[in-house]
Amino acid sequence: MLSTMQDVPLTVSRILRHGTTVHGRSRITTWTGNAEPQRRTFAEIGERTAQLAHALRDGLGIARDDRVATLMWNNAEHVEAYFAIPAMGSVLHTLNLRLPAEQLVWIVGHAADRAILVDGSLLPLLAPLLPRLDTVEHVVVVGPGDTSVLDGCRPAVHEYEALLAGRPTAYDWPELDERTAAAMCYTSGTTGDPKGVVYSHRSVYLHSMQVNMGECMGLTDADTSLPVVPMFHVNAWGLPHAAFMTGVNLLMPDRFLQPAPLAEMIEAERPTHSAAVPTIWQGLLAELAERPRDISSLRHVTIGGSACPPSLMRTFEERYGVRVVHAWGMTETSPLGTVGHPPGGLSGEDAWPYRVSQGRFPASVEARLIGPDGSEMPWDGKSAGELEVRGPWIAGAYYGGAGAEPIRPEDRFSPDGWLRTGDVGTVTPDGYLTLTDRAKDVIKSGGEWISSVELENHLMGHPAVAEAAVVAVPDEKWGERPLATVVLKEGAGKVSYEELRDFLADKVARWQLPERWTVIPAVPKTSVGKFDKKVLRARYAEGELDVTRL
Amino acid sequence: MLSTMQDVPLTVSRILRHGTTVHGRSRITTWTGNAEPQRRTFAEIGERTAQLAHALRDGLGIARDDRVATLMWNNAEHVEAYFAIPAMGSVLHTLNLRLPAEQLVWIVGHAADRAILVDGSLLPLLAPLLPRLDTVEHVVVVGPGDTSVLDGCRPAVHEYEALLAGRPTAYDWPELDERTAAAMCYTSGTTGDPKGVVYSHRSVYLHSMQVNMGECMGLTDADTSLPVVPMFHVNAWGLPHAAFMTGVNLLMPDRFLQPAPLAEMIEAERPTHSAAVPTIWQGLLAELAERPRDISSLRHVTIGGSACPPSLMRTFEERYGVRVVHAWGMTETSPLGTVGHPPGGLSGEDAWPYRVSQGRFPASVEARLIGPDGSEMPWDGKSAGELEVRGPWIAGAYYGGAGAEPIRPEDRFSPDGWLRTGDVGTVTPDGYLTLTDRAKDVIKSGGEWISSVELENHLMGHPAVAEAAVVAVPDEKWGERPLATVVLKEGAGKVSYEELRDFLADKVARWQLPERWTVIPAVPKTSVGKFDKKVLRARYAEGELDVTRL
Repeated sequence: MLSTMQDVPLTVSRILRHGTTVHGRSRITTWTGNAEPQRRTFAEIGERTAQLAHALRDGLGIARDDRVATLMWNNAEHVEAYFAIPAMGSVLHTLNLRLPAEQLVWIVGHAADRAILVDGSLLPLLAPLLPRLDTVEHVVVVGPGDTSVLDGCRPAVHEYEALLAGRPTAYDWPELDERTAAAMCYTSGTTGDPKGVVYSHRSVYLHSMQVNMGECMGLTDADTSLPVVPMFHVNAWGLPHAAFMTGVNLLMPDRFLQPAPLAEMIEAERPTHSAAVPTIWQGLLAELAERPRDISSLRHVTIGGSACPPSLMRTFEERYGVRVVHAWGMTETSPLGTVGHPPGGLSGEDAWPYRVSQGRFPASVEARLIGPDGSEMPWDGKSAGELEVRGPWIAGAYYGGAGAEPIRPEDRFSPDGWLRTGDVGTVTPDGYLTLTDRAKDVIKSGGEWISSVELENHLMGHPAVAEAAVVAVPDEKWGERPLATVVLKEGAGKVSYEELRDFLADKVARWQLPERWTVIPAVPKTSVGKFDKKVLRARYAEGELDVTRL
Repeated sequence: MLSTMQDVPLTVSRILRHGTTVHGRSRITTWTGNAEPQRRTFAEIGERTAQLAHALRDGLGIARDDRVATLMWNNAEHVEAYFAIPAMGSVLHTLNLRLPAEQLVWIVGHAADRAILVDGSLLPLLAPLLPRLDTVEHVVVVGPGDTSVLDGCRPAVHEYEALLAGRPTAYDWPELDERTAAAMCYTSGTTGDPKGVVYSHRSVYLHSMQVNMGECMGLTDADTSLPVVPMFHVNAWGLPHAAFMTGVNLLMPDRFLQPAPLAEMIEAERPTHSAAVPTIWQGLLAELAERPRDISSLRHVTIGGSACPPSLMRTFEERYGVRVVHAWGMTETSPLGTVGHPPGGLSGEDAWPYRVSQGRFPASVEARLIGPDGSEMPWDGKSAGELEVRGPWIAGAYYGGAGAEPIRPEDRFSPDGWLRTGDVGTVTPDGYLTLTDRAKDVIKSGGEWISSVELENHLMGHPAVAEAAVVAVPDEKWGERPLATVVLKEGAGKVSYEELRDFLADKVARWQLPERWTVIPAVPKTSVGKFDKKVLRARYAEGELDVTRL
């Protein structure tokens, strides 16, 4: 039996229309460094969004489903692109400006972007790549910049404001099927080609509602949010879309992401909320300790991207009265996967075990843990498994390229369509997730899992150990066993492997203790400073490590 | 271009599964009068919901799409029915126990309900109707009650707890298309047969997200909500579904809706939120003035159903620190249409014009005003029109009956599918709605509209006037003109029609002044105490009124 409800699609244009009318007075303030900030009301953004859509369609010939890339910081013009491109039925493709040049070239080609909107300040990054961006027909330069670097380039070059000028300030947005592509974002995996995640109008809409729910960020038009997390990083965690849904004012940092300008813009523009990775907040704390600023407007900060040190959370709360809330997600999850509010209004010390977890799943994110033998593990806070998730804003495939079928690698999607996150952890009976390892770093020993991260953390608690990385190595009897690689502190004197093993003995189960040990001068690191375990595994396989077996 | 997102339906079973696991510790407390309240965790509700679904399917033979009615107060068992029936793929039909017997019989027959769950305390209401409820095969009695009144009735009679006992506490909920019917509710219009609105799983899910958004009620599992608004009245404004989505604890009043027990349960169980029509709050205020109670736990109260007197809002806020928020909606809008939070955190006196309006539309409720000539009126806070709305939880038709097509009366649905609310009002540029009249009570005079309510309110400000009702009467020149019917205060002495007209002259435009006047002994009223204008119009048409023409 069918309902008698109206069949109305959930689309980006609906968010845009609402934000620019009912919340037309809300504002985007973009930081400009030393000059006065640029200020635009949502109503003005609405007119400019219409102009941009006319410019793209009539000026550049951008059609339905065409991909339009942005290489931009967080600013008002980027928000205009965020709404105009999906609302007109084209696909917004945000480019991560921190990716290596090779990957950017590959990604633009794979998405077959027809145009790129680029901040003038980022022209030096784009210009050298342009000769290899075969699909790109138009480059639109936003704001001031040295356009001479584009002289002689193949694509047509346009100036953003000139392109918009004089065009109609209203656009008859098409009513799209809510499952149509709205935006895309490529993940930069450490192995293989980048993978494209294609968000739908439906997923963006539902995710925006979730962000604004009281159990999540719960923002309203009484708030001003400062998204430090880049708009090229999973849609700035959904904040621009969520803001237009409820009229949240936005304070945009543009390229001024250093601690000093961040402190300055918080003091001057008084945001109530912000979102960023932990390193940003560590930098801000250090800055504030040296040059105090008034950040009393901030009430609530969302931290994600990597685990946040509890000390950082405590300092923010105790010294500045800012509530720090953990969140976990990934490009494939739009990104909202969990949010770390404690249950039932628990506060004080009782709340900390919950607050330092990755957080709790919302109703739209179904989760399960798959253990070493492929069976579902209980939510008991102890049993570990790989986290798999399912929901209306979770990816079920990767983009296959123009005209090609979506791709569903077995190691990323289960046969019944759930996303394999590649993260290993535990879940409490009340749905709080704690991640311990990446699945590829877990040691699969005789049908059980050994957490490499747990062994590392214990080892790094030994007074003689500076760093320790534990990796899985092949073992005839057990399948895999842990290899402990240890960097000793300078001047720590001699310490035997037996002593290190005994140090672990009362901290982990006996069968988890490594037999294989080696001292190395330094742990190899990735470009973002994480332990590069695949290098260690390769060195072991090549016999380059001097391993002692106990 | 399609997205790569998972295609996961928004269903009631998803809300249920989430609420009974992640929020398994949240509770429903049902007031029982003098005894200890009944307390159940969401986890327990989950097990009992599974048992109820097994009982309905295996015990009573209820199949997909079958309608199951409830004639119940707000209590834990009603919540069990709320989830079990839609989650198993059947359709929950809540019966309004305040409807006249004739309408209840008609509605049960039209919906073709196969079973009715009834509170024991409501058996005296149901029993006399049963012989005429031809489609009903099963009556399930919940809680204590005098079942002897059912002796010899045709349908099979079951006792709720006995029916559930021993059945499995888990159920393999089917994954339904989100556009499937989940629940239905009939409107009791003053003219014609009642009309059935059929909610979908999708509309219930999206509405629940909206209720929990910060701009709306923004509730979390740190809250306890007391829905005084009945669960047979538009799903208790969505609160039970919304509660299971975020773990909001529920305090259920059952049949104890009088001011004294309400005050008592608020003091004892300390809810943070409540929702009811204004008369409930007026009664509570009077009760508290006489017998003070501690209601300090209440922070936020949602008022809807009819306009709330500002004095009531102020008293609650100033005397008890309870924030009163207006909301507007109807059965056809699930019901959330607008919520009256002031814009941008405005507070104090500046906020009042917004707070006494019906409130602001959320992103999912698109609105337009259609003026006297059928054209769209501007949102300028002055131009009046009939409110039409569109959105994913707004009805686009009424239920046509089993096997029949949905019905779309012209006066309720526009040709392009919008709901004609039958309410006339204005909207400010920032989306705040103020309703002034029912469309059928507006006087259409020469292509302009005259508000009967405005004329009445002004007239009732005259010291000699007790009541005044203004209705449209036919006029050869203008189409319609206002007829003022006036009830004079006892002992107010003589007052001429000219004096009353002059009293209005500086309050409304000259062309709006009534020419036709009559004094009547009392304004005829409907069963719920509203002015019954159709009776006045009929009396005028029949020449029964002694009308003076100025």
